[in-house]
This record gives sequence, structure tokens and C-alpha cells, in this order.
Amino acid sequence: MSFHQKEIRLPAYRRGFHIVTDTIVGHLPELKTIEVGFLQVFIKHTSASLTINENCDPTVRGDFERHFNLLFPEDAQHYQHDYEGSDDMPAHLKSSTLGCQVMIPITKGRLNLGTWQGIYLCEHRNHDTGRTLVLTLMS
Amino acid sequence: MSFHQKEIRLPAYRRGFHIVTDTIVGHLPELKTIEVGFLQVFIKHTSASLTINENCDPTVRGDFERHFNLLFPEDAQHYQHDYEGSDDMPAHLKSSTLGCQVMIPITKGRLNLGTWQGIYLCEHRNHDTGRTLVLTLMS
Amino acid sequence: MSFHQKEIRLPAYRRGFHIVTDTIVGHLPELKTIEVGFLQVFIKHTSASLTINENCDPTVRGDFERHFNLLFPEDAQHYQHDYEGSDDMPAHLKSSTLGCQVMIPITKGRLNLGTWQGIYLCEHRNHDTGRTLVLTLMS
Repeated sequence: MSFHQKEIRLPAYRRGFHIVTDTIVGHLPELKTIEVGFLQVFIKHTSASLTINENCDPTVRGDFERHFNLLFPEDAQHYQHDYEGSDDMPAHLKSSTLGCQVMIPITKGRLNLGTWQGIYLCEHRNHDTGRTLVLTLMS
Repeated sequence: MSFHQKEIRLPAYRRGFHIVTDTIVGHLPELKTIEVGFLQVFIKHTSASLTINENCDPTVRGDFERHFNLLFPEDAQHYQHDYEGSDDMPAHLKSSTLGCQVMIPITKGRLNLGTWQGIYLCEHRNHDTGRTLVLTLMS
Repeated sequence: MSFHQKEIRLPAYRRGFHIVTDTIVGHLPELKTIEVGFLQVFIKHTSASLTINENCDPTVRGDFERHFNLLFPEDAQHYQHDYEGSDDMPAHLKSSTLGCQVMIPITKGRLNLGTWQGIYLCEHRNHDTGRTLVLTLMS
């Protein structure tokens, strides 16, 4: 058993849902050598999140943004935490609903994702400057 | 430390929430030999999901189906991804809300679940032909 | 690779979202000795949950309670599971939406959380008597 861990900084993404699978794998040349194990990707923020979903049609990611905006609207009357901007409290709620980590099985040197699965970075703030991820390989 | 991994294919389940704890454990005779560790169950799809919830009363699973259908309705006007059927985009949204994996501690040869906890397969499509899971034991 | 696992019992918390990071770390003196690894916290219940979110302003936790109560209301007409109290079915739904576990990377003897991240115990019942957690360190 061994761990291999690194922190990376993603550049700023605009608000919305973005596929980052290749970016993450690009930081992990060690992945190829792992017969069986896990990759965990952990985001060190509470107003962005990580999830796994459809890796092909961009309208899926657009619909995610539109639908999560309806479920977690800005400026709801019951929000008391409002001094960091209208997009802040919805961002916290979205973050816990989607989650701050993904844990993906590794099989024969590759992420064992389904054909249509990709890793999404979900940016819930309007203007962020980038996000820090902890990547941990376990084998 | 060791890993034991296998892929299994679940038969088609009808749309809804289904308890699959015993099915999964039935594929893992190795579980009994593990003193401390984890089981991860990962679903290789973006329109079905896995979660842990109440393992006894079927009305709980029915209420899950009914309530998630309200939160993620079919044919919403803001959906642009509509060419795979009315049940498709809601399925993607439900999948990321509930998640594509569960990670369960193992203690003395058993899944260390609470008395009322079971693993749900959440089938969000109307007509699917079965689902592939990656089961990974870590010990 | 080694595992260190223990079960702890949290005292009863009132319904709502509560930061428990220090309580959990207080049970894990072994954490300091781990160079790289993971902590998993798993809750053995289906009407409470665990998530990671903002660790500073209590109004965030209040807004979580208020907003999740809107998304998962009590006494909805479509609930058939109603004999355990008005707060029961919403509790199950919230539990699967937020999740029953958090898995946090460990780096140099500390949980590698972001500056603003803390572990929330999310108590979804009105009157509970306490909750059991399984803490597992992997290194």
C-alpha cells in the first residue's frame, strides 16, 4: 500500500459546470503504474464542488447550472448570510449538495469510469480566482 | 494493505429506489476475512446512482422517488438537453445529487452499517437494461 | 498501510447543522503521526448526515437548516412514510442528499481541509438522543 499526494491549483473557471478529467489525469503520470487502487480528488473550498456526470454534451452542464440556480436561488428572503454577495449562500448550499470530493476506482492504470462519466468542477461563484485540489492516489 | 476488485452487472431494475445490500455482499465472500477496511461501490453510469438509507419500509423508497421527481421534474422549460427522452436530464441531476459511490467501513468481517442502513440502487431511467458496478475491498 | 478505527458516540444535538471538526479530531491522537492518508467519518444513521462546509459564520448553518426545510418540507401530501413523525421522511431525504460520510485527505499529521472548511453534523430529527460515528484512519 502506498499513497501519492499532491496539491494543484486550477485556474479560474467561470460560474458553471466544467469537465476537468483530462486536466486532473495530466497531473498524475503515476496513475499508469497502478494496477488497482483509488484516486481521490478533494476541493479545499466551500463555494465550489466536484461531481461525476455526463462527459459529452455541453447542454447537460448548462442544464445543471440552470436547474441548481432554481433549487438554490440568490437573495432568498430566508438567507441571513448575505454579506459576501448574492451568489455566496447559494454556492455553499450547492457545494454540500454536490460534494467536495470524488473517489474513483483505478483499474490497470486507468480511472475506471464509465464511458459517459467525467469529473466536473462546479464553480458556484461569479468571480473566483482559482481553486485548490488535493489529489491522492492510493494503491 | 491489499485491494480486491471486481465488476458486476446488476439486472435491469424498474425506475425507483431499490435495496441491493445483500446482492452486493453476495458477490464478496472475501468480506468475511477482513478485520478492518472499506468497501467502495461505484456505479459506472450518469443516470443512476447509489446512496445509503432506510432498509426496511418500502414506503420510504416510494417517497424518495416521488420527492426527487418533484425536485427534478421532466420536461422543464429550461432544459436544453432533451433529445434522449424526458427522463434523461432529470436522471443526470438526480445522479449528481445522490452520488455515484458509497464507501462503507468494514469491521470484523462485516459492513459496519447502522441497524437501519442499506445500500440503495437508484434507477432514474424508465427503461434501462442493467447497470455495472465496480466493487473494491480495501484492507 | 494501516487502518485505525474506532466508534464514538456524539451527544444529542438539536435539529440543525453543527460544526464537529474539533470533537472528531479530539478523538484521534493518532492523526498527528500520519504523514499521508485519509480520515473517513461515517454516520450509522439515516436521519442525520455529514457534510463539509463553512466553518465560521453561524448564519450559514442557519441558512442550511432553513433552505433544506424548504426543499424537503414536512407533511408533504405525497409522503406515504408518515408514522414516525412529520420530521422523519424529510430527514431521510436530507440524509441522502447530503451524505452519510466524509473522506478527508491527511497531510503531515493534519486534516488537509481548506481554511474555511469544517465538518458538519447535520441533525435532521427534532429529538434525537445522540449519534454513532465510525472514524477510520488510513495511512
